[in-house]
Amino acid sequence: MFKFVLEHVDKNTGARAGSFYTPHGVIKTPIFMPVGTQATVKAVTTDWLRDIGAQIILANTYHLNLRPGSEIVREAGGLHKFMNWQGPILTDSGGFQVFSLRGMRKISEEGVSFQSHLDGSKIFMSPESSIKIQENLGADIIMAFDECAPARSSRDYIVPSMERTLRWLERSKAAKTREDQALFGIVQGGLFEDLRIYSAKKTAEIDLLGYAIGGLSVGETRPEMLAILEATLPHMPEYKPRYLMGVGTPQDFVEGVLRGVDMMDCVHPTRIARHGLAMTSKGMVSIKRAEYSRDFTSLDPDCDCMTCQNYSKAYLRHLYKSGEILSSMLLSVHNLNFLLKLSNELREAIFEDDSIRVLKRLYGEMGYEF
Amino acid sequence: MFKFVLEHVDKNTGARAGSFYTPHGVIKTPIFMPVGTQATVKAVTTDWLRDIGAQIILANTYHLNLRPGSEIVREAGGLHKFMNWQGPILTDSGGFQVFSLRGMRKISEEGVSFQSHLDGSKIFMSPESSIKIQENLGADIIMAFDECAPARSSRDYIVPSMERTLRWLERSKAAKTREDQALFGIVQGGLFEDLRIYSAKKTAEIDLLGYAIGGLSVGETRPEMLAILEATLPHMPEYKPRYLMGVGTPQDFVEGVLRGVDMMDCVHPTRIARHGLAMTSKGMVSIKRAEYSRDFTSLDPDCDCMTCQNYSKAYLRHLYKSGEILSSMLLSVHNLNFLLKLSNELREAIFEDDSIRVLKRLYGEMGYEF
Repeated sequence: MFKFVLEHVDKNTGARAGSFYTPHGVIKTPIFMPVGTQATVKAVTTDWLRDIGAQIILANTYHLNLRPGSEIVREAGGLHKFMNWQGPILTDSGGFQVFSLRGMRKISEEGVSFQSHLDGSKIFMSPESSIKIQENLGADIIMAFDECAPARSSRDYIVPSMERTLRWLERSKAAKTREDQALFGIVQGGLFEDLRIYSAKKTAEIDLLGYAIGGLSVGETRPEMLAILEATLPHMPEYKPRYLMGVGTPQDFVEGVLRGVDMMDCVHPTRIARHGLAMTSKGMVSIKRAEYSRDFTSLDPDCDCMTCQNYSKAYLRHLYKSGEILSSMLLSVHNLNFLLKLSNELREAIFEDDSIRVLKRLYGEMGYEF
Repeated sequence: MFKFVLEHVDKNTGARAGSFYTPHGVIKTPIFMPVGTQATVKAVTTDWLRDIGAQIILANTYHLNLRPGSEIVREAGGLHKFMNWQGPILTDSGGFQVFSLRGMRKISEEGVSFQSHLDGSKIFMSPESSIKIQENLGADIIMAFDECAPARSSRDYIVPSMERTLRWLERSKAAKTREDQALFGIVQGGLFEDLRIYSAKKTAEIDLLGYAIGGLSVGETRPEMLAILEATLPHMPEYKPRYLMGVGTPQDFVEGVLRGVDMMDCVHPTRIARHGLAMTSKGMVSIKRAEYSRDFTSLDPDCDCMTCQNYSKAYLRHLYKSGEILSSMLLSVHNLNFLLKLSNELREAIFEDDSIRVLKRLYGEMGYEF
């Protein structure tokens, strides 16, 4: 039911083009994956996601387990039916939220006790319960339960945490029962290159359908993150998809792909959209700026999304200043379209061994800064 | 450029079916008109409005004059282009907001001084300035500047106010310069039947392309409102469209149409949508109710809107409880579709002299209460 075909590796950068076959369709990589935390990509319909070429979307195990509850999603026929998205879906393990949201928590070998961010109730999550929840949700790709260690944790903290994450991966794999879901393991190791390499090698020893890199984009600088990627990626299986978790500015996305990452996700494009920020082929646009009050041109003349085809910057500014929901809707669609078109552009360039041109365009004519 | 054809009057109720020709298309009446206060029907795209058969939408002169400013809309090419809606548009005069929003105001023969609800700045509005703003906005139908008197005003208050509104109508008409806009006058008179009749007759003496009834649905009971309608409508021109302003529950809409109203508007359907309330063929549904947590059926089995075709009550409840924008989007589309389908149903029934069946269905199988 699952197959990853590595179609081409850019001779000059190591960027990869592939096809990942899943029960709900083929994912052409490299790909940016929109995030639908609570079973909806915020302010965007699934029709629009299809229109802009989204190939796979994410949903969050932690949030959906608290509300509406994974049993309800299972009874609904699974996430695809519940949220009306027939393409591939990936759920995270809940680990990231358990470790990043507010509230007390206690980690043991068995799992993690923590408090719900909604009502403070006590919850216990383990590799087994995470897999059970993810089987209820029914995504195509599910993630092993891991600890995402706090940013800049010490070596003394990271080593046992990373070792436990490896043991939790074995337990996640053992707990899995559904054949129509692909389990990905997650490489951890903080900002220590040797620990990352160790974690990558140990994770690769476990036969899985895909491998992820977690614990990045949690506060480190971009050069630090890229150094870790460069150290880690050579030790990850070549013929399996590689997923860099929670990373998604245009710069991170292109830099990651050029180093050999196949999949990335982030709330960044929809979150900044709700704050009036748009990614464009001429850099970031803050739509609230007074200079756009009489600018009747589109947000991005190079963009084919419904926002740019139908609305002016002056109108988008008016919507944002007026607090209108349509502002979030139109800017979210636009930003997701931007990253999906960037995915396509990278894929084409990879086949021509010229993915570097996308990086040059990003920092050149598009005006993004490293 | 404008023509109203009265196609049929229900022999049993007086309900009317007609066609109103405007520069941006024909409006088949009776019709409910969605409200786009700030040049957007909240949480709904203009594509969706087209899909659900919206024929004409409203925008608010007061709000658009404050932000972004009518000059900017004029420079954008008018409201149609600014907000990407190619069908007919109606703008109110600003009078209702001037008299209903918070802040000090001073009424004189010349016009009204008031404070902006946005920044407290002093603004003066007169029949001439209202028409000028509405010409900048460029809607197909524009409204005369009137005073919407406070609910349950005394006869002593209403008489001079109503007389001034008649003088303001003459000035509104004299100020108008554009040929491609139809000016409607507004009947006032509070809850006094004789004053309403007087206002209707005096307003009808002024040759206009349409006539509206204002100052209702501002706090009076439904029987009080309907009594005023019944007293007023016989004195309004028969062969011109009749518009009941700001009225829009399903009950008000059907009751109004059966008494001979052709057009109505209200923020009600989209406002209650944002509070999780849906109009359905089985009455009002409050989507937050626990009973829907495992209800995987659609909101309304009789509904063909995108919400009912693709999503379950359980999912809609989840979205609402999670505070997701998609909740407002999906419920707003549904509620507008409900009133537009009710418009169609009324129109068909009118041609069969059986509009009473829609009223019976509303209070019978649909379960709405008078």
